[in-house]
Amino acid sequence: MSVCAVHSCRGVGVENLVSDISTMVFRSREIRNSGKTVGLVPTMGALHEGHLSLVDIARQRSDFVVVSVYVNPTQFCPGEDFNTYPRNLEDDIYKINARGGDVVFAPDTGSVYPEGYSTFVIVEGLTDNLCGRSRPHHFRGVTTVVAKLFNIVRPHIAVFGQKDAQQLAVIRKMVKDLNYDIEIVAAPIVREKDGLAMSSRNAYLSGEERTQAPVLYQSLLEAKELVLKGEIDAASIKNRVMYVLESAPLAIVEYVEIVEPDTIRPVDTIEDGGLLAIAVRFGKTRLIDNLIIKAG
Amino acid sequence: MSVCAVHSCRGVGVENLVSDISTMVFRSREIRNSGKTVGLVPTMGALHEGHLSLVDIARQRSDFVVVSVYVNPTQFCPGEDFNTYPRNLEDDIYKINARGGDVVFAPDTGSVYPEGYSTFVIVEGLTDNLCGRSRPHHFRGVTTVVAKLFNIVRPHIAVFGQKDAQQLAVIRKMVKDLNYDIEIVAAPIVREKDGLAMSSRNAYLSGEERTQAPVLYQSLLEAKELVLKGEIDAASIKNRVMYVLESAPLAIVEYVEIVEPDTIRPVDTIEDGGLLAIAVRFGKTRLIDNLIIKAG
Repeated sequence: MSVCAVHSCRGVGVENLVSDISTMVFRSREIRNSGKTVGLVPTMGALHEGHLSLVDIARQRSDFVVVSVYVNPTQFCPGEDFNTYPRNLEDDIYKINARGGDVVFAPDTGSVYPEGYSTFVIVEGLTDNLCGRSRPHHFRGVTTVVAKLFNIVRPHIAVFGQKDAQQLAVIRKMVKDLNYDIEIVAAPIVREKDGLAMSSRNAYLSGEERTQAPVLYQSLLEAKELVLKGEIDAASIKNRVMYVLESAPLAIVEYVEIVEPDTIRPVDTIEDGGLLAIAVRFGKTRLIDNLIIKAG
Repeated sequence: MSVCAVHSCRGVGVENLVSDISTMVFRSREIRNSGKTVGLVPTMGALHEGHLSLVDIARQRSDFVVVSVYVNPTQFCPGEDFNTYPRNLEDDIYKINARGGDVVFAPDTGSVYPEGYSTFVIVEGLTDNLCGRSRPHHFRGVTTVVAKLFNIVRPHIAVFGQKDAQQLAVIRKMVKDLNYDIEIVAAPIVREKDGLAMSSRNAYLSGEERTQAPVLYQSLLEAKELVLKGEIDAASIKNRVMYVLESAPLAIVEYVEIVEPDTIRPVDTIEDGGLLAIAVRFGKTRLIDNLIIKAG
């Protein structure tokens, strides 16, 4: 299947591209019926090493890997970067093939949300805090498109990045609540050499913003050090993170929160552990990062 | 499997009862993997001949029939009859076995909606009119539980009664929008000899209410006759229906509407056909009925 993975010849693997939903349903059904397991990696394209690490994990844990590439309009709020979000399908296909993905599923918006579309999947509770606060319809768009992808591809496993920790929690909750027979696998955050978490949106950063952006990870590392020294009070840890973030002149902090990783409810101490999650804007670019911290 | 269907021996078919969700997932997966097709008939139990006709249809159109019996709390509004809704699982199992159903899936509420449950499937647009108007959360409960049943049982087909015409339209829309690879089959309304559409709620009717209840079907038949004579104006047809319904002293009309059957949007004429749908209360009992009508 993965011609390009074998020949390393750019652009040849287009036969692995599926853009028609019915074809994807059929292909996936054939694979399952042959007794093979299917792994799904849902992406919005503009693939970087973070995404490709998800493909590696899917590859290791399933027989057949589907990578979806779809910039999902319903998860963007008005005024966000839907129109300017980076798109380069040819490059994505090349990278997916090179990494051993079997199918690139890239449906067009007209087929994903045909005229009169009106069904949505909502996860209440987990979506009010963190990113849900500034992006009210974001998670409804995420859960809806992921439910659709699950129904089309019917994977045995699906791999999501730990970077979008709230998204991961919301997807896990949806899978549990709606009884999807799918194992959700979390993949560790992949970072640039200077610690900046990889993101398709990093491409938006100006030279100076890019120089300051590693402050997100630095703030998390300082929090970790504080915890290693015995600090368990959430407010104190958040204060330290805020202090570090504010040392970067261009950083506009949207939130610094410590929450229970499954419920996304704020915690007062990290005795039982917590998810330290931050969102910071540099100009128009919104970056997120996080770290699981635990006392002792 | 269907021991009782063979031996006609009451109560023996309990081995066909599955109350554990994981067991149902496993059983259904086994059946599919063996190359057989699975048909699902979702019910709230208290089975009558209407439900059993759905089992017959599922039987004809699939290799393995799962009948779910679950009184779904999320589709009842506050003050409705959730607590008093008729329940008789033993009797339901007997009837399903006798009709050739292979599995009765009767999960308990604690497993369907565990503590902290918070995910819902909503279909916008189709649910504002008809029953959705007086039962605002009803369809959200229906679509949520049906999505869950679809994910647990993963049927090839699912059979729903035409009596709940709006429910049928909403389910079809959900299936289309969320890309469920499931064929939805509509089953004709089954009626008592005097024309009353069968319903588990008919059991609530007092003697006098029961005597008057056939007025629903009579009003639909009069509308049909009017249409056969050439009437295409929706308002005139609705007026005639209302006139007939009001001839029954105990009937309290909730709505008489003519809508487009897929979108549930009101129509002015029935030139292109329409769904004539009515809801009438007798005391605390709410009855619905409907008829597809078309000019010419």
